[in-house]
Amino acid sequence: MSDRINVGVLGATGTVGQRFVQLLDGHPWFEVAFVAASARSVGQRYADACAWKLPTPMPEAVKDLVVVEPTPEAVDARVVFSGLTSDAAERVEPDFAQAGRAVISNASSYRMAPDVPLLIPEINTDHIGLIETQRQGRDWPGFIVTNPNCSTIALCLALAPLESQFGIEQILATTLQAISGAGYPGVPSLDILGNLVPNIPKEEAKMESETKKIFGQLMGSQIEPHEMTLSVTTTRVPVVEGHTESVSLTLTGDPTVDDVRSALESYRSRPQELELPSAPCHPVVVTDDPNRPQPRLDSDVEAGMATIVGRLRPCPILGVKFVLLGHNTIRGAAGASVLNAELLHQRGVLP
Amino acid sequence: MSDRINVGVLGATGTVGQRFVQLLDGHPWFEVAFVAASARSVGQRYADACAWKLPTPMPEAVKDLVVVEPTPEAVDARVVFSGLTSDAAERVEPDFAQAGRAVISNASSYRMAPDVPLLIPEINTDHIGLIETQRQGRDWPGFIVTNPNCSTIALCLALAPLESQFGIEQILATTLQAISGAGYPGVPSLDILGNLVPNIPKEEAKMESETKKIFGQLMGSQIEPHEMTLSVTTTRVPVVEGHTESVSLTLTGDPTVDDVRSALESYRSRPQELELPSAPCHPVVVTDDPNRPQPRLDSDVEAGMATIVGRLRPCPILGVKFVLLGHNTIRGAAGASVLNAELLHQRGVLP
Amino acid sequence: MSDRINVGVLGATGTVGQRFVQLLDGHPWFEVAFVAASARSVGQRYADACAWKLPTPMPEAVKDLVVVEPTPEAVDARVVFSGLTSDAAERVEPDFAQAGRAVISNASSYRMAPDVPLLIPEINTDHIGLIETQRQGRDWPGFIVTNPNCSTIALCLALAPLESQFGIEQILATTLQAISGAGYPGVPSLDILGNLVPNIPKEEAKMESETKKIFGQLMGSQIEPHEMTLSVTTTRVPVVEGHTESVSLTLTGDPTVDDVRSALESYRSRPQELELPSAPCHPVVVTDDPNRPQPRLDSDVEAGMATIVGRLRPCPILGVKFVLLGHNTIRGAAGASVLNAELLHQRGVLP
Amino acid sequence: MSDRINVGVLGATGTVGQRFVQLLDGHPWFEVAFVAASARSVGQRYADACAWKLPTPMPEAVKDLVVVEPTPEAVDARVVFSGLTSDAAERVEPDFAQAGRAVISNASSYRMAPDVPLLIPEINTDHIGLIETQRQGRDWPGFIVTNPNCSTIALCLALAPLESQFGIEQILATTLQAISGAGYPGVPSLDILGNLVPNIPKEEAKMESETKKIFGQLMGSQIEPHEMTLSVTTTRVPVVEGHTESVSLTLTGDPTVDDVRSALESYRSRPQELELPSAPCHPVVVTDDPNRPQPRLDSDVEAGMATIVGRLRPCPILGVKFVLLGHNTIRGAAGASVLNAELLHQRGVLP
Repeated sequence: MSDRINVGVLGATGTVGQRFVQLLDGHPWFEVAFVAASARSVGQRYADACAWKLPTPMPEAVKDLVVVEPTPEAVDARVVFSGLTSDAAERVEPDFAQAGRAVISNASSYRMAPDVPLLIPEINTDHIGLIETQRQGRDWPGFIVTNPNCSTIALCLALAPLESQFGIEQILATTLQAISGAGYPGVPSLDILGNLVPNIPKEEAKMESETKKIFGQLMGSQIEPHEMTLSVTTTRVPVVEGHTESVSLTLTGDPTVDDVRSALESYRSRPQELELPSAPCHPVVVTDDPNRPQPRLDSDVEAGMATIVGRLRPCPILGVKFVLLGHNTIRGAAGASVLNAELLHQRGVLP
Repeated sequence: MSDRINVGVLGATGTVGQRFVQLLDGHPWFEVAFVAASARSVGQRYADACAWKLPTPMPEAVKDLVVVEPTPEAVDARVVFSGLTSDAAERVEPDFAQAGRAVISNASSYRMAPDVPLLIPEINTDHIGLIETQRQGRDWPGFIVTNPNCSTIALCLALAPLESQFGIEQILATTLQAISGAGYPGVPSLDILGNLVPNIPKEEAKMESETKKIFGQLMGSQIEPHEMTLSVTTTRVPVVEGHTESVSLTLTGDPTVDDVRSALESYRSRPQELELPSAPCHPVVVTDDPNRPQPRLDSDVEAGMATIVGRLRPCPILGVKFVLLGHNTIRGAAGASVLNAELLHQRGVLP
Repeated sequence: MSDRINVGVLGATGTVGQRFVQLLDGHPWFEVAFVAASARSVGQRYADACAWKLPTPMPEAVKDLVVVEPTPEAVDARVVFSGLTSDAAERVEPDFAQAGRAVISNASSYRMAPDVPLLIPEINTDHIGLIETQRQGRDWPGFIVTNPNCSTIALCLALAPLESQFGIEQILATTLQAISGAGYPGVPSLDILGNLVPNIPKEEAKMESETKKIFGQLMGSQIEPHEMTLSVTTTRVPVVEGHTESVSLTLTGDPTVDDVRSALESYRSRPQELELPSAPCHPVVVTDDPNRPQPRLDSDVEAGMATIVGRLRPCPILGVKFVLLGHNTIRGAAGASVLNAELLHQRGVLP
Repeated sequence: MSDRINVGVLGATGTVGQRFVQLLDGHPWFEVAFVAASARSVGQRYADACAWKLPTPMPEAVKDLVVVEPTPEAVDARVVFSGLTSDAAERVEPDFAQAGRAVISNASSYRMAPDVPLLIPEINTDHIGLIETQRQGRDWPGFIVTNPNCSTIALCLALAPLESQFGIEQILATTLQAISGAGYPGVPSLDILGNLVPNIPKEEAKMESETKKIFGQLMGSQIEPHEMTLSVTTTRVPVVEGHTESVSLTLTGDPTVDDVRSALESYRSRPQELELPSAPCHPVVVTDDPNRPQPRLDSDVEAGMATIVGRLRPCPILGVKFVLLGHNTIRGAAGASVLNAELLHQRGVLP
């Protein structure tokens, strides 16, 4: 245990913070040594400050940690995972980078900053190159690396093999997103019980811009966004975990459904080659059951780190279509950050 | 009351049958005089045979009706509303037509028969002309008229003004459909509670073929289907009433969003002109609230007889997109049949 | 219309406030002339300030009312209905009483004040006598009258005929309460979707103390609480409207189940005799269907103003048991206040 | 693996059967060698015949087993776990006992037979003595052992320490039961989504009679039922897994709440002493969080094999009250049978 890297979790009592604590419990490389949260929790035991909402028990190792402020002084760790809200992240994360820390962030604040990698280890490991640009431009000894929004990442994992084998031209998608994506207290039950809301504020713009950045080209010190066209409608449905997306695509060269299936099923990438601890064996899992994937039954496939694709078939308008599912608080949030940190550690980029 | 037309309801104890009974209670033109159902209910009082599942009380007038067999002999009414399952409808409805009765059917069995009108009074009143073809070809003194599938009709109402003003070329839609669309017992709760199912068997094919027939041209004695292209994905979500659909469209001439809005908002058609008793004032209602329509809050707009359109905006791929909502067991089923019967009565076509 | 009494609604944009607006629309005696809410709504049109959450449309008559502050100056009506939170009510309601207004309140703040009637017109109309005590003791020209908590009132309606015919000694109850009882935003969806919470803070104490006061005796200028013993466990379940309660009772004289049924079914009281506009014909409705009452199907019986009793049978421990259901935001909140106001108007007590 | 005992699962494709397959995967003593189901599945691979509904993947080891008929000839295992429906169990289980097999049954058919143990290893291991009576009376070389109904067993685990330390006199309970308790397809979603049903047919009688048998005394060759009085109301709520029960008790000697807490918390029994593989460390877990236990968060405590008790406090009528939670398809069904088999194996009673 002594040779694990001490890490801090910022926003540790929130929905994403709890997932960080859960996923890092027993991690081979990282050990949670600091839990930071807002003023009203500071000074309390984590077990007292945190209204734990996950169905597995709170890890013993964190129960007696005392909650500290989210400042570099209070969080004496060279790597911090950020589950902060975007407002808090915008203020706090630069302080950590300034203090020489690696900030592995799930917050949206700096995702679209031109010098901040929006990293998915299967897709754009070369975007790590932006870290140098970031350090020089901002005069930071540390840095910030981000992962995408929960609905973006589930989509991008399914797109990755299709982009590399064929090229993506158009994406038209409707999402059916779980309530846990909105955090806690998040969606009021009166809005969603036996109901759905046909809009998630800002989510459509995020999916569109983030996807283009993720698949963009690193040209010197900046990312040239991908030229694909996206049209997304996002909705909230009464599901606890697991974002579902109905996706139609135009791919370059108009491949057959069998070609697409083959590309999805055979897909492996860097995290799999490097055998990163949190990497799914199969980043994309294809099901032939016409009634799957279903969020309650399939979100935990590959420990929540993969995208499940079903109902693969031709789209008479755009070319090919399918329904995908991703675990929004594991691969869609904390798990994405953990995998990013694993990649950076393996690459020797962590301070 | 004495001058109302006696009607029968076939499948009167089922989900759609109960809606017929509810909607026809106090109807100015029709009066439920016969309730027919399967063998195990025959001979019982309707109040005893029927496990009433609607939140309004069972109408007093039907409670003491004795359930009869769904045969022309037992149901001595010249107009019958059919809420039968498709298997039963396939066998039973021709017997009624053969016996000179008007069968106003919500069942899917004869919707796509070339000589049977698939009628939406706002859209294709001229398809009533098929009745003559049907009678001659089948040597029936009576006839069958059908209404579309629940998800089709909600879509078609929104399409109607766009087809007449611009012309429809392509429709790409994902539906989020309520459990009541599957009848009773229908969807097992273990499949849908806190979950969704990304497929409704046969529903996508129905939406595609029915829509083309509805907007088809009556050429002599047959319908030439519309040439639009549809690509539909249907899903089931944990909502009780109200089908939601996320729709992207290519319209001829590429009208602006404002043109589309204006066409939708100003839309009135034959049922409105004729002031049919069940006609909505506005067949299409447009909302500007970015979080609407929502099934639990908006399904009852216009007494469940309209399609509600929200989130109207450009689609960067197909041209224009929106989210629509329709009440699947009122306008999507029994209410559609009642409006069809009203139109036929007003036209003097009922026997 | 001109001879209707102008009334104000305090907390008009909240969950209870919206129900007041809905229930008072078209009321024969009262007309909403003022809508008051918190500072951030003041000055806006009601239609703009209020995120309307009821499935029926917002009444036209209130849409253009401008929201005012909840002060006697801004709300120039002699009768005000209060849907304020208890904090706000505690501060604001006395100002109105001081200014000579009748405050008909659903808030909990003054329910247990010794000089404030906790009124259910079927049960304790004589408690109106406390108004005089209140005015003298507090030197108020106006007054405050309250109605009970939502779960209390549903219980008390079922108890009323049993208390008057037999006498109540012990009540052991477990409630299964709807989310709307917690207002908006109220219960976070992450806490209740596919889940239940076995506790509602303060609710059990309210049910116990309020029930004893409601059935208490007015002795001179104060209420002697009823001596019954109550033991209540309150839970929250994923239901939108309708509180269900599983109740076991010990009644004086140990009546048979048939005696109890007969008492419940035959029950009529003052609001029925007086034909108050909002009075249910039957304050208690008994069902013999072993699977009823169910909140989604039965909450709207008697327009939401009655308690539905089912599963009436012997309790081998306490004597008799049943399951009851009441509409928590109609008879359990706004509808209770409206009926109270109707009684006070009929009695000539309103200013 | 070679020295594990081959077992069969009867009703292997059903809800309980799937749990057997899941729980026995990797079991140290038992290995599923036969899966039996109804005629329409016979001859298919288990993976093809079974619509797997659990969120963990189907174990690899069973996927290629060919489904056989539930007969002793086809199921060549000396121990069979029965997840059959009660109709099927009534016919099939005696055939296996007749053929010398040990039938470890979750079905209700023989639970109340005087010569069949209704076994909870923590409570009544001495009831194993009935097996000899059963064999002699029925002339069977094998035998049937049963476990209680899901709602009974969760209750009995909490009662066990109280019975042994104080003695139980009266139990008044209301249950809030999960839909998975009704199997598949089970509860129609139209009956339970956003709703509850205040009755589960036959469940109340089962809880009352089974509890008395479980705590009964084995007198020679028969069980003298316990003399406690029970009064139970059972309800169905929209929860997937986990039965909640609101319980009030009269205990002999009227112990304090602290005495009761201490008895519950310190409780260990035979399965814990024997370290049976599926035994929970703590059969009863007490929580002080006033909002727990909650089915979605706490059902998996102790791998679903314990009863969680919360809200422990005085009951002003009966003495003490609390809310308990048990996992209805693990400890409430398949897990109970597995623990029974483990006890019988450890005792050397298995053939």
